[in-house]
Amino acid sequence: MLQLYFSPMACSLSSRIALMEAGLEARYHLVHLRTKKVAEDEADFRGVSPKGAVPVLVLENGERLTESAAVLQYIADLKPERGLAPQPGDVDRYRLQEWLSFVGAEIHKAFLFPTFWYQDDASLAKPRGRIAQTLSVPSAHLATREFLVGERFTVADAHLAWALLLLRPAGVDIALWPPLVAYLERMQARPAVRDAIATEMALRKTMAA
Amino acid sequence: MLQLYFSPMACSLSSRIALMEAGLEARYHLVHLRTKKVAEDEADFRGVSPKGAVPVLVLENGERLTESAAVLQYIADLKPERGLAPQPGDVDRYRLQEWLSFVGAEIHKAFLFPTFWYQDDASLAKPRGRIAQTLSVPSAHLATREFLVGERFTVADAHLAWALLLLRPAGVDIALWPPLVAYLERMQARPAVRDAIATEMALRKTMAA
Ligand SMILES: N[C@@H](CCC(=O)N[C@@H](CS)C(=O)NCC(=O)O)C(=O)O
Ligand SMILES: N[C@@H](CCC(=O)N[C@@H](CS)C(=O)NCC(=O)O)C(=O)O
Repeated sequence: MLQLYFSPMACSLSSRIALMEAGLEARYHLVHLRTKKVAEDEADFRGVSPKGAVPVLVLENGERLTESAAVLQYIADLKPERGLAPQPGDVDRYRLQEWLSFVGAEIHKAFLFPTFWYQDDASLAKPRGRIAQTLSVPSAHLATREFLVGERFTVADAHLAWALLLLRPAGVDIALWPPLVAYLERMQARPAVRDAIATEMALRKTMAA
Repeated sequence: MLQLYFSPMACSLSSRIALMEAGLEARYHLVHLRTKKVAEDEADFRGVSPKGAVPVLVLENGERLTESAAVLQYIADLKPERGLAPQPGDVDRYRLQEWLSFVGAEIHKAFLFPTFWYQDDASLAKPRGRIAQTLSVPSAHLATREFLVGERFTVADAHLAWALLLLRPAGVDIALWPPLVAYLERMQARPAVRDAIATEMALRKTMAA
């Protein structure tokens, strides 16, 4: 069975959404990212992945795959009939890769990551100054489209939905981009997305308590 | 003919390397990134791509593709016989995507981009504090391997070679990671890589003059 190392509401949420949209069972291992401990046995998470970051997907053969863009495409390709990624060879596959890179680099690594990990104002002034320009790109795209790529939900939507969810706790009012608000509502109306978020929010409350 | 919008020694260099390794002709358009002007006609580069960032690859049908991870895979797949990316379906294709994401998010967006665009020390303290841990990942991987993925040069190597080249001007002494020094030397010994860098270094000198 597949296994996913995750932390509640971290970027590994999009991999959970993808697994649930694909209808794939998996064992989920909770990781404490600040202490780098795997919750169930207190093992050092760096032994699982030297990056010390989630997501880590353990494949059926035991190999470990990291980086959301790779993990999400891997999951999508396990169930091609679900259409979670355009088929290789279809030009839309590159559009999927384009959005995965944009969310992972421009929204996550350039803004969300410093916001939650660096925290101090000095580190954050410059990233904050760029986020409006960054968000204008998916906002313009989604003003006339239901999904990021083609006519159906893909793993790029899983990744963007996660990133948008985190913008509010990161201090960004997404009401400034009505197409993004409407899009996030559409995504959250999907049972798999809703269930994935509910599971992780519940876990997060337990951890905070 | 393909067209590539680039800026000398920016991350678009890896797309140039990929085109040259693939033996593909392209028209190259130089962009001034600070003023967002296309050099040849002073046109607003945001008209080419609202992101205002290189690389932008103009496909044969006129569509524009952005994000290095997508552009590099597109180029690789145009010439499958060159082996610049493992074939879709091969598990190594996900390893390629993993490295493309790692270079694009963890080295480029988390470190090189703030270094060259934010510049002030306050913005850079936290990114600088993480770069050694980040570089230990490819260094450990390459201690026993010639290339990032499989037994041959792929577009992931083009991307990492670019990132490593920029570390020195970004104030990081890569001599601390001998496997990365040896790897970069191997990459720079490839005619396509050497020629791509020489072309862009020459352009950069003209611009600075
Ligand atoms: N480029 C990676 C980023 C992974 C990442 O930054 N994960 C965060 C959680 S959202 C993490 O585990 N951070 C812990 C750390 O970096 O120490 C991806 O796209 O998967
Ligand atoms: N995620 C993009 C990043 C592109 C990027 O940041 N390009 C830089 C040059 S290395 C740029 O054009 N910056 C200008 C700007 O962001 O205003 C990719 O991987 O291609």
